[in-house]
Amino acid sequence: MTDRADRDCDGRLVVFDGGERAPARAGKVWLVGAGPGDPELLTLKAARLLAAADVVVHDRLVSEEILKLAGAEARLVHVGKKKSRHSVPQEGINDLLVALARQGFAVVRLKGGDPFVFGRGGEEMLACRAARVDCEVVPGVTAAFAASAAAGAPLTHRGLAQAVTFVTGHAAPKAGEANAGEEWGEPELDWAMLARANHTVVVYMGLSTAPSIAARLVAAGRGAGTPVLVVEHASLPEERRILTTLAGLGEAAAGLSGPAILVVGEVAALADVKGVLERAVQDIEWKRA
Amino acid sequence: MTDRADRDCDGRLVVFDGGERAPARAGKVWLVGAGPGDPELLTLKAARLLAAADVVVHDRLVSEEILKLAGAEARLVHVGKKKSRHSVPQEGINDLLVALARQGFAVVRLKGGDPFVFGRGGEEMLACRAARVDCEVVPGVTAAFAASAAAGAPLTHRGLAQAVTFVTGHAAPKAGEANAGEEWGEPELDWAMLARANHTVVVYMGLSTAPSIAARLVAAGRGAGTPVLVVEHASLPEERRILTTLAGLGEAAAGLSGPAILVVGEVAALADVKGVLERAVQDIEWKRA
Repeated sequence: MTDRADRDCDGRLVVFDGGERAPARAGKVWLVGAGPGDPELLTLKAARLLAAADVVVHDRLVSEEILKLAGAEARLVHVGKKKSRHSVPQEGINDLLVALARQGFAVVRLKGGDPFVFGRGGEEMLACRAARVDCEVVPGVTAAFAASAAAGAPLTHRGLAQAVTFVTGHAAPKAGEANAGEEWGEPELDWAMLARANHTVVVYMGLSTAPSIAARLVAAGRGAGTPVLVVEHASLPEERRILTTLAGLGEAAAGLSGPAILVVGEVAALADVKGVLERAVQDIEWKRA
Repeated sequence: MTDRADRDCDGRLVVFDGGERAPARAGKVWLVGAGPGDPELLTLKAARLLAAADVVVHDRLVSEEILKLAGAEARLVHVGKKKSRHSVPQEGINDLLVALARQGFAVVRLKGGDPFVFGRGGEEMLACRAARVDCEVVPGVTAAFAASAAAGAPLTHRGLAQAVTFVTGHAAPKAGEANAGEEWGEPELDWAMLARANHTVVVYMGLSTAPSIAARLVAAGRGAGTPVLVVEHASLPEERRILTTLAGLGEAAAGLSGPAILVVGEVAALADVKGVLERAVQDIEWKRA
């Protein structure tokens, strides 16, 4: 086994010599959902694995507070992921996980939310599988659940939404482009499907494309007065919530810059935004129960 | 405040006298997601609240092992929920939560999965809000995430699924029918929407209606060879996974009886069902990567 060196997002060289630190056992990768941000929303299993990990490979969105739950001996590797900037390409992450496990390390790959919902966890799992590296996926609380819970806006609700669809506002690069700077573009979504009634649409990473998302949904037939709940930094102390409509979404989103969740649909009007309402909502067609 | 008495699902009278046990503070209701079943998939916050609760009001699907995390002094109230049998009507649950909080109790309403995804948590939250009872929602890991994680079948995956939709295979009774025996029927779903390509459909509580769900999806244009992953008892020791297709779903479902999740879509074919494959899969059109 050759030594492995890589640069993390701060430009530091990450060298694993496979020598003194590597235990005499087979390594393993755990793809672990870190939840929406609040350390208390980690699962008991995630906390246990984090405390026992030799190496923790984490994204930008995983907080210092969560990383503190790792053991004092654990090596932390920051692989970024902020769309096109300062990030290790996906293929580099895949290779790193495999190499670390092959050196016998217990590797926790910590991913915001749930690893299998827009986390590209599937690609990391397949890389492990192809390399015959043991890989276990530990589910987590996705940001949309935290946004919905904190605002008091259920994602499904009798009479308002019998289904909920999760989409991302940014499309990952197509296969084969994975090393080409990781440029993320507008997703090619099925707008006619998303515009159907009696249905909640949750958009991850939709802040920068919010005006276009709103316009496309309205063009596809969803009413301009459809309520939209925007939650920035869900579950963190700096969480902000805005209740608006598809017509007002572009303007509302322009005032935010952090990671945000959009909840589009009649259920959003149930949100209890007292005290944190950032903009007056005057044009909601649907009245609260 | 009058005393409150109710019968739990085992027919026992549940009496809260509001006297010696009630602390001299305002009560509160926490609607807490208990996760998919494995106690380790509780959040740290859920575990903390459970340990501190005066009263825990729980569903049938919350296991003994999880309930053991409640404090020794906590009162456990089982309100059932197995479709039409042995359950306290939803309105009775709403009233009970409000009454307990008004008596000053710290009430944890423990719900399988996440409280705001097919948990009717919205109704309980609105009941608290209407009664001006403090209510906080604590998100949880939904069963679909556990099913997907354990099987190694991501819900979204580059090139296979850009969106995931959650629906329920059983429709809740319509408003106004809530006390009429809680009969659950087939849901009136938007089959055309669910049949769209490049899209994962997750069905909760879909075992008994599986043949009809498969037939309707195929009639709406989804290929009969579309892979379907069925996971019964996700995250529990007795978990079983079947990989089949829409054409084979009816037969596969007939052999199961526990709570199950259906994952319909090309991502299901990524499932690693070695060792637990219950039926040979010979007709999957989509080949594994």
